[in-house]
Order: sequence, then structure tokens, then C-alpha cells
Amino acid sequence: MTKYDVVFEEATESDALALASFLEEVSSETSFIFNDSESFSVADLKIALALSLNRLNRICLLAKIDDDIIGVVNVTSSDSYAIDHVGDLFIAVKQAYSGHGIGHCLMELACDWAEHSPLIRRLELTVQARNRRAIKLYQDFDFVVEATKTAAFKLDDETYLDVLLMSKMIGNKK
Amino acid sequence: MTKYDVVFEEATESDALALASFLEEVSSETSFIFNDSESFSVADLKIALALSLNRLNRICLLAKIDDDIIGVVNVTSSDSYAIDHVGDLFIAVKQAYSGHGIGHCLMELACDWAEHSPLIRRLELTVQARNRRAIKLYQDFDFVVEATKTAAFKLDDETYLDVLLMSKMIGNKK
Repeated sequence: MTKYDVVFEEATESDALALASFLEEVSSETSFIFNDSESFSVADLKIALALSLNRLNRICLLAKIDDDIIGVVNVTSSDSYAIDHVGDLFIAVKQAYSGHGIGHCLMELACDWAEHSPLIRRLELTVQARNRRAIKLYQDFDFVVEATKTAAFKLDDETYLDVLLMSKMIGNKK
Repeated sequence: MTKYDVVFEEATESDALALASFLEEVSSETSFIFNDSESFSVADLKIALALSLNRLNRICLLAKIDDDIIGVVNVTSSDSYAIDHVGDLFIAVKQAYSGHGIGHCLMELACDWAEHSPLIRRLELTVQARNRRAIKLYQDFDFVVEATKTAAFKLDDETYLDVLLMSKMIGNKK
């Protein structure tokens, strides 16, 4: 692959359109990523990105080459007190840039943000049990498998797949 | 307790106000139930109940004495194909009617609905690990513990509680 400069930065409302295309693209590249069409609308992303800026319980970080989004990591927790310490993590990298450490950098930034957050005590994510590469990445950041959710995901051919629930405790805050 | 006639019926839009009061009441009675204030608004409940009627992936059943709601069971799955077979189950019974089998009846109706659904393949729920009585009820209906989610719930005094993820496969549909 050609040498390139990757910039990592927090997403803003103005990234909504590019982010929608990015999510559309990565979810069409692989059946590992769950395409919940509702959450990919530009309007919804604009709202979500506006919400995320300068919030204790949300962050959306982008990996960009020039203006092209090649990766994203998003952490969101509920606004409800009882679970606002539980950050849901989502990460995706364009296939063309896979294997170059972009995912690693994004995970590092997200975990670092969580460690410095006064709110987040727990990060969690779900990943298809067959997605060994992603699981390895999460394990590298000390995520552990809390559950194998039997048949929790359905492919287009009606094959049911197991999904792992993985989590990581943050700091010694418990 | 006085003898009483309990009627079990599917909730309609017109139950929204009574259901909001019921949820407010049961969540103030116990810290076992998670009061996500956003979902208890009458307007949101009206929309949710209207959506639930005659849908393959949603049901909301009420236990009533006269017009008073004393229990509810709700199952919802996503509208997204990949996970529309996963029904999230929520159940609550007023403390005054606890121990009289209302929860058992509601669970039976919900599981029966799921077994006859062409869509639902998996029911799941979360329950605080300390809520032994509820866990026993779920086990009676063949729910198994898939995960202990460490510190996934926070009490008002900032105590963190473990939460169980429990699930039940439906039919031999896998």
C-alpha cells in the first residue's frame, strides 16, 4: 500500500454525510458489520454527532486520509443514570486499509478516552463469534468474553450466528 | 389478599396513560426495575403500543383487575432483519400482587406467543444478579444465564451491581 498520512480526529456534525457513506460502504464490504439502516441516515447521524461533541458519555473518532473517512470508533452510553457508566463501543475500518493498525489506533484512542472519563466504568461490545480478527483486537485491549449469545445474528441466507458479548472494566473505579 | 379476577389482555394505545403510571409505580417500589424515564412518557408509550398491535415482532400484555394494571410483559425485537428474531423481554408486577402467580402467567403468555411466532427464535432479558426471585421465575421458563455483566448497573448511592443476561431459544428453529 502507498504511504499515506492518517489523521485521527473527533467527528463533528459536518462529517455526517461522509460518515453515512463510510458506514454504507463498510457494511456492504462484509457481513461482519451489522447494517442497521435506521442508524445510517444522514439526519440521524447529524443529531448523534452534534450530541457527541463535548459530552462525558459519548465520543466519535474518525481516521481520515485527506477528507476520506477510512475508520471510525464510536462509544455511547445511555443518558440514564443507572447505566450511564456503560459505554457501548463500535468500530469499523475500510477493508482496503485493514491490517495497517488503523483499528488498533482507534481502539487505543477510545480506551484512553474511557480511562480519562469521569463517567465510564465499563466498555462493552458485541462481535460475531466467527470474526476472529476483531476478537483478537479486542482481546489485545483486555476485553474479555462475557457471553456467547447463541443465534443472536441472522445472515441473509437465514443462517444463525453466535455473537460474543465482550467487555472491559475501566480503571479501578468499581 | 382478597379474591379478585385478573384479566390478561393485549395492551392498546388507550392503555398508555395507565401503563405510564404503572411503570412509574413499580419502579419506585423497587430498585430491581430500571426506570429509564425516557421510555415512560405517555407519548412514547402511545407510539410503542400502537406499533405493537398485530405485529410479528412485538407484543405487550397486561394483567388487569378491573381497569387497574397490576402487571405487564413486553417483548420487542428490532425491525432490522439481522436481529428481528431476537425478542427482548421485560416483565413487571406490582408489589402488592407479588407472589400470586401473576408473573408466572405473564411469562407463560409471552413464551407461548414467542413459540407461535414465525419470527422469534430467541428471547433475552437482563436481570440484576441479586434479584433471586425473578431469576427463579425465568429459570422456570428455561431461560439460562449467558453472562454475568460485571458492574452493569448503578444504584443511586453509586454502588455497582452485576447484571445477568439470560436467554431462551425458541422451538427448534435454529
